[in-house]
Parts: sequence; C-alpha cells; structure tokens
Amino acid sequence: MTKTAVVLLSGGLDSTTTLAIAQSQDYICHALSFDYGQRHQAELNAAKNIAKIMNVASHQVFNIAINQFGGSALTDKSQAIPEYQSGAAHIPSTYVPARNTIFLSIALGFAETLHANAIFIGASSVDYSGYPDCRPEYFAAFNHLAKLATKEGVEGHPIHIETPLMNLTKAQTLQKGLSLGVDYSLTVSCYQATDEGLACGRCDSCMLRKKGFIDAGIDDVTRYV
Amino acid sequence: MTKTAVVLLSGGLDSTTTLAIAQSQDYICHALSFDYGQRHQAELNAAKNIAKIMNVASHQVFNIAINQFGGSALTDKSQAIPEYQSGAAHIPSTYVPARNTIFLSIALGFAETLHANAIFIGASSVDYSGYPDCRPEYFAAFNHLAKLATKEGVEGHPIHIETPLMNLTKAQTLQKGLSLGVDYSLTVSCYQATDEGLACGRCDSCMLRKKGFIDAGIDDVTRYV
Repeated sequence: MTKTAVVLLSGGLDSTTTLAIAQSQDYICHALSFDYGQRHQAELNAAKNIAKIMNVASHQVFNIAINQFGGSALTDKSQAIPEYQSGAAHIPSTYVPARNTIFLSIALGFAETLHANAIFIGASSVDYSGYPDCRPEYFAAFNHLAKLATKEGVEGHPIHIETPLMNLTKAQTLQKGLSLGVDYSLTVSCYQATDEGLACGRCDSCMLRKKGFIDAGIDDVTRYV
Repeated sequence: MTKTAVVLLSGGLDSTTTLAIAQSQDYICHALSFDYGQRHQAELNAAKNIAKIMNVASHQVFNIAINQFGGSALTDKSQAIPEYQSGAAHIPSTYVPARNTIFLSIALGFAETLHANAIFIGASSVDYSGYPDCRPEYFAAFNHLAKLATKEGVEGHPIHIETPLMNLTKAQTLQKGLSLGVDYSLTVSCYQATDEGLACGRCDSCMLRKKGFIDAGIDDVTRYV
C-alpha cells in the first residue's frame, strides 16, 4: 500500500536527514517549509534546493507571520543572537513561542487534505537547544491531539507524528544521513547565515552542528563566513 | 492580580458571547481574528466592529492561508455550501482540516508573548456542526499539549484553554450574552454572508442560530438577505 507523508523541511541538517529517512521508508514525501519571518532567507533557499534535488512529490512554502507577535530573537532583528552557552539550563531567547505546535498544526491540516499517513519532523531531545517543544512527551501529547482533532483521526486513520531523530546525537544523525546519501553541503543550520548561506560558526545551532561533525569524525562540509 | 486572556473572535454569535463572558470574569482581553481565506469578509468586518465596541485591549487580525491546501467548502469557492441536514451523522464538507488546532496554536504563541493566563474559544458540543475539534476531549488534549509545549508551561504557568459555551445550547448562549449586554445584530454567523453581512438563512450555521433565537423566545435580530 502506498504510504504518504508530510515532511517538515527547514533546509537544515536535521530536517534534510529526516526527509532522507522518510524516503528510505518508502513514503511518498511532500515537503513543507515555513516562511515565518526568519532573520534570513538562506534556510528557505536551501530547502527549495534540497526539495528539488531529493525529488519530493511536492514542496509547499507556507507563509506565517509568527513575528507579528514578537517574542523571539530568531524573528526579531532588534534582538542579538546569543552565543553558545554550554550546559545552559534556561530556555534560550531563540525560542519562538509555540513554534513547533504551530508548524505541526499546519502540517496536520495539510496531511489531512492529502490523506497522508504521517508527518515527519526532525526534532531531537539529545543534542538540542532546550526548547520545550522538542521533547518526547510533547510529541506524545501532539499525537494524542491529532487523533482527536481530525476527521481522519475520528474515522480511525489518525495521522502519526514521526520523529526519527529523537534519540540520535548530532553525530549519529550525520552518520545516518551520509549512509542514505545526504549532501550536507546543501544544508544551512546557522541562525544568522548570510544570504549566500554562509554560517557564523558561533551560534547555538552552529556549535551543535560543528560538534556533530567532530564527534562523527567526518569532514565539516559547512560553508563558514 | 491582573488576569489576561486571548479571545478568539470570529465575529459570530458564539465568539462574541465568549468575549463578553471573559470580560465579565475580569480578564483583560486581547481579541484575535483570522483571515484564512474565508469565502466572505463580512465576518472579519463584524469582528473588527465588535472588538471596537466591546473595547478590547487589542485586536490582531492574523493572516493564514489555510485555503492554500484546499479541502473545505468553507475556503474553496468551487465547492457549494451544503444546506442544513438535521441529524446528519457525518462530518460536513464545511469542516476545515485542523482549523481549531491551527487557530489555538497561533493563539498559544500570542498568549505566550503576552504572558496571558488563558485562551477563550467559543466552541460548543451541544448545538454544533459535528466537527471533531469542538469536543471536550479535544480541548482536554490541547490543554495537556499547551502545558508541555511552552516556556510558560514548563515554568509552571500553563496557559489554559477556556470553553465557557461547551455545555450551552445556542438558546442558553443567547440568553447568557443578552444578560451581559451583547448586541447580536452586530454578529455574523452565516457561512455565505453577503459583503454587507446579510445572512442566507439556509446553511448549517444559519439554521443553528435561527433555532437558538426561537428556542430562547427572543426576537431574531439577524439581518437576512
């Protein structure tokens, strides 16, 4: 039987690996990206390029002005991006209020119109930035909600949220992706990349990515400023 | 202590009553409406007017192109709005995939930036159209998710979803609203209202509303075509 999935594709390392995993599991993949007032367009450009090269069934870019409300350094250009703090216990200022909930909700609506079986998202609770909406218990709660929220769910065909990277370190994610043929030079993870997709090498996201390449013993193919 | 709420305001009978209830409970109310590719603008015009007259702290209109995905007669002008069917067991074609989940997620992000205590939504499981995302178990699941999804929730101040109309019939909602001084001639409930806000009198939403006025023994102030 044909399996169909919506894959959230930001253009970064994690979501691109997730797309490769979904494809390796024989899902027909529809990529979904969000233009939500990010500080830069490099990530979205990377997503478009990756969607094309990885030959997805369709790629939708959904406009949603989360920055209308403010509240995050990731969408508010008047706030500085903080440098990486090892072992920081608080939720960082790059946290975007309810971002994954908003993205998954829209993916759920899209998945329902496609009669899709699953939504794939590249969240990990191992090498992550401490965001509350990246934890396994959060996704369990969303799965429960998805069952009750939709016509598909009520009719006995709930759409399941798949988080294949949940228990992987960044290094393990890289190794998995390389085994599936992912070209990481296409991906952009930096919170403040240049328009050409060059990474700063200093933000949380760059540090986690850099450490992943080192731990995996793989050459870092990231293009830095 | 000051209490703050985000109130979802469509401009219809239920959401306007809900706003009046939240205000009567001493919440400082921020109204949130969605421009989601509805078939008509009459509802949004009503919401703007009501927000002003009821003196809310702020009114945001959030653009979200749910119609980008299609899948509902409410946002797809190529589909006809079905006429009311008494006791219909199926979910009608006016169902918009994951609509309440998308709206509540965005409200959650907004509420978090406001440090609000609650989100009010005028859903009812009594006189309703059979949508899965209007049932009490759906809102219980969303409350659980909201606790896990947000910085506020993790820090012990979860944002609670309030559904004051859940167990009220349309007639009881009207009586409650009238006791709080709501002017229902300002509200638009029709799925296919004219630009001037005149109701068709034949769709699900009109039929439920009409029955509400009759059952409550109140003059129907709706402006019909």
